[in-house]
Amino acid sequence: MELKTREDINERKSLRYHIRQVVEHPYFQPIVIGIILLNGMIIVAETYATGNTLLITLDQIIVWVFVVELILKLIGLGFRGYFSDRWNLFDFAIVIGSLVFYSTPFVSVLRLIRVLRLIRMIPAIPALRKIIDSLLKSVPALTGILGLSILIFSIYAIIGTTFFSDVLPYEFFGSFHTSLFTLMQVVTFESWASQVARPIINEIPWSWAYFVSFIIIGALVILNLVVAVILSYLGQEDDVERDKQMNRLYEENKALKQDVAEIKEILLKGQKS
Amino acid sequence: MELKTREDINERKSLRYHIRQVVEHPYFQPIVIGIILLNGMIIVAETYATGNTLLITLDQIIVWVFVVELILKLIGLGFRGYFSDRWNLFDFAIVIGSLVFYSTPFVSVLRLIRVLRLIRMIPAIPALRKIIDSLLKSVPALTGILGLSILIFSIYAIIGTTFFSDVLPYEFFGSFHTSLFTLMQVVTFESWASQVARPIINEIPWSWAYFVSFIIIGALVILNLVVAVILSYLGQEDDVERDKQMNRLYEENKALKQDVAEIKEILLKGQKS
Amino acid sequence: MELKTREDINERKSLRYHIRQVVEHPYFQPIVIGIILLNGMIIVAETYATGNTLLITLDQIIVWVFVVELILKLIGLGFRGYFSDRWNLFDFAIVIGSLVFYSTPFVSVLRLIRVLRLIRMIPAIPALRKIIDSLLKSVPALTGILGLSILIFSIYAIIGTTFFSDVLPYEFFGSFHTSLFTLMQVVTFESWASQVARPIINEIPWSWAYFVSFIIIGALVILNLVVAVILSYLGQEDDVERDKQMNRLYEENKALKQDVAEIKEILLKGQKS
Amino acid sequence: MELKTREDINERKSLRYHIRQVVEHPYFQPIVIGIILLNGMIIVAETYATGNTLLITLDQIIVWVFVVELILKLIGLGFRGYFSDRWNLFDFAIVIGSLVFYSTPFVSVLRLIRVLRLIRMIPAIPALRKIIDSLLKSVPALTGILGLSILIFSIYAIIGTTFFSDVLPYEFFGSFHTSLFTLMQVVTFESWASQVARPIINEIPWSWAYFVSFIIIGALVILNLVVAVILSYLGQEDDVERDKQMNRLYEENKALKQDVAEIKEILLKGQKS
Repeated sequence: MELKTREDINERKSLRYHIRQVVEHPYFQPIVIGIILLNGMIIVAETYATGNTLLITLDQIIVWVFVVELILKLIGLGFRGYFSDRWNLFDFAIVIGSLVFYSTPFVSVLRLIRVLRLIRMIPAIPALRKIIDSLLKSVPALTGILGLSILIFSIYAIIGTTFFSDVLPYEFFGSFHTSLFTLMQVVTFESWASQVARPIINEIPWSWAYFVSFIIIGALVILNLVVAVILSYLGQEDDVERDKQMNRLYEENKALKQDVAEIKEILLKGQKS
Repeated sequence: MELKTREDINERKSLRYHIRQVVEHPYFQPIVIGIILLNGMIIVAETYATGNTLLITLDQIIVWVFVVELILKLIGLGFRGYFSDRWNLFDFAIVIGSLVFYSTPFVSVLRLIRVLRLIRMIPAIPALRKIIDSLLKSVPALTGILGLSILIFSIYAIIGTTFFSDVLPYEFFGSFHTSLFTLMQVVTFESWASQVARPIINEIPWSWAYFVSFIIIGALVILNLVVAVILSYLGQEDDVERDKQMNRLYEENKALKQDVAEIKEILLKGQKS
Repeated sequence: MELKTREDINERKSLRYHIRQVVEHPYFQPIVIGIILLNGMIIVAETYATGNTLLITLDQIIVWVFVVELILKLIGLGFRGYFSDRWNLFDFAIVIGSLVFYSTPFVSVLRLIRVLRLIRMIPAIPALRKIIDSLLKSVPALTGILGLSILIFSIYAIIGTTFFSDVLPYEFFGSFHTSLFTLMQVVTFESWASQVARPIINEIPWSWAYFVSFIIIGALVILNLVVAVILSYLGQEDDVERDKQMNRLYEENKALKQDVAEIKEILLKGQKS
Repeated sequence: MELKTREDINERKSLRYHIRQVVEHPYFQPIVIGIILLNGMIIVAETYATGNTLLITLDQIIVWVFVVELILKLIGLGFRGYFSDRWNLFDFAIVIGSLVFYSTPFVSVLRLIRVLRLIRMIPAIPALRKIIDSLLKSVPALTGILGLSILIFSIYAIIGTTFFSDVLPYEFFGSFHTSLFTLMQVVTFESWASQVARPIINEIPWSWAYFVSFIIIGALVILNLVVAVILSYLGQEDDVERDKQMNRLYEENKALKQDVAEIKEILLKGQKS
């Protein structure tokens, strides 16, 4: 492909122009979204009729449609134009992955790749892109809280493993990674008392302090996480709007000031003469 | 009805006028609300005494009272006037539905329609109308997040069905729709670990990643949904108030500017002369 | 008491003055709070040692101390002065209730009254009063949503009772009030799937729609309730602050305007002459 | 140490200068964080291989590294400079505690101290410090709500113990402290109906009011707590930003006013002459 394009640039240019017309046609993207939706339905249908040859064939056709779409976009927008959008890189990886792993002997990997193709919906629909983008934007504000959460989880998991590992039921605090999962369960308030805490308190009475303190600290950290997210959004929206309004006021004030300055100058001149 | 009204417009007009007086009387709406409340109590009473003839008779009378109310409103406000309010269309559908399905052989449909009549409370009480209206207004801001939720649920349901359908208990991930329900349970943190995740992790150790990632992603999406709703409300209220205040400041500044400009003109004239 | 005060007003006045000094002494309220705290500890101690005569005697003494405190306040602040604060009315009712029911043969009522005396903590500590006051202030903003919640709960409870009352387990949707309690359980996401929904879905497959719709509607209503509370608080705090700042700006602008107007007048005079 | 430093102040000064250079070197803190991380990994590894001599030796080495770090900081920054930061006091306590309890016969205390050393991560990483600092700053705004929570929990725990202590299962409301734990479980909505409320309602029918009222009051208090935290954060951020902008506007207005005043003066002078 690449070799051919280097040979006849002129012809390619005109070809690229026509392909670009196709790629940027207002119906192009809705058709792609439609094919992804169809792909989703086929995958869902496959869960009801595993191994149905019609569905598998349709799925294979869709992979090749995606490959054609990718090639069209690559030619139409050019390598640089295509990869200048981070989302296209993501899209590229999924399509290439689908192609590479299509004839893998590992059925489970194949199935996973097939489902992940549906994530292409996100770059295809602007509303979804926007949500993910703004979600990623709020991540830096959360790094501190995430770090703190990891620290708190680790400390509690180590304490839990050290003191409760011999207490039945063994599966809760048997080892460090089991404890982490149990703490995840406790922090979502899921059967934390009925299943986890009460049996352990029966054996080790002081362990109520472990659970109650973890729940309060965990809830506080989550509350702070929520507040941090809300603030990061509020900040983004509010400040922009307010700054605009304030700037307009400043501009008006500036103009007024210059006028007053000019008047003063005129008066001072008048006084001199 | 319609035919008769066309024949003697003059008489109708005076009749309509009187009916309008009735419909727009300050006691009319409270009486309607009272009847709906009574209807509610009758339906509740029926759950304790199924088949009580007195209650059924009262219920039938109320349906006819509602029909009379509808006719009065239709005449009093006119067809256009009545249907210009979207809520009235809703109201109309419920009353007509009650009438049409009253002698249905399907008892369950009948019972459902009877209960749905209570929803008439919403258009009848302005405070409830307002909540539903503002709730509907915030829907467009949520479409993106709803779409993303459907996508995430679908992908996880397919993965769950593909990998966990053979694992006991079969009812959780047996098929696509069962998986969707199970994910709904997981996203509300309801017995997600004790009932769903732990038995599956016992069989397929890596499945912890499936559940933990779904819970974190699900919680993030819900958090974003909450923030989006809060922002859509905050935006509605705050901006209106601030814009008003800012506009007053602009107006004041404008007047001031004109004054300064006039002064400048006067001075420049004085200089020339 | 009242008769005596009417007889010798002068003497009473001087007595009232001294009592007022006592009641408004900076140590008076902290001592009352201390006694309520002590009362709380005695009641807690009684749960461990039921029927302990020392604790019962102490409790009786504290009731009389509260009665004395009440009489002192009534005399010191006067009837009007005392009841002008709504919280004092509440306080009065609790103390009088404690006195009236002290020798009741109904032990359970006695015990309840004894515990409710601890609520006196709220009017005694300003910080707690403030929270309750601001909570009550946000109630009007919530009436609409509360009404809507009652309507939604009622409709779902009637539907649940009508269709699921024959399905085992009978205790969930056996009757209207049982259904209301079950819906309360469902709306808090407590075992809604594992205990309530799954057994019913096994019998009546379409019931999944009942539960999922109730959970989504319930969550939306609760979300709106949260937003309404947040907005009612935000509104109270923010607007006051912003209005102050804006008013200062207006005042400054007004003064500026007057100055400019005066200048204009001077110039126009100068032009004429 | 202290004695030696008093003897040759001059030499110490130059030594302190060099140590300060080391302590404030940009690589010093990252290395300390690295050692704490390594310490964490060793402690986690120990949960999998209890009693491994290599890990215990490494752990002992790290304690001495921490002691050396502490001494370096104490000399480099001086006693006053070091303890002027509250976080260093906290750090000091942990390191000294690690040293003191290292050869304790109580293995459980030893293990706890070993884990708590990981909390040193918080003062070492500024982002974590900031979160804890702002969390502590929002505590005063919460004292009222915390007090109210304690009061509500106590009252409900006493009522629960008084009325439900004889009802099976005994472990829920058997005594005051058990009731407190059960209420903690109820307020997190954890099996409140399925495990706690339903068995008790079966015995004492009116107890539904106890649980429903506690859940509603508890949810309201938690909602208020969340709002209070959000407001305390919003207040901190928003006001600072807005005040800055407003102040700039005031400054501009002030300058404008002075200009106008000067013009007026010039004009009045001109009129006189």
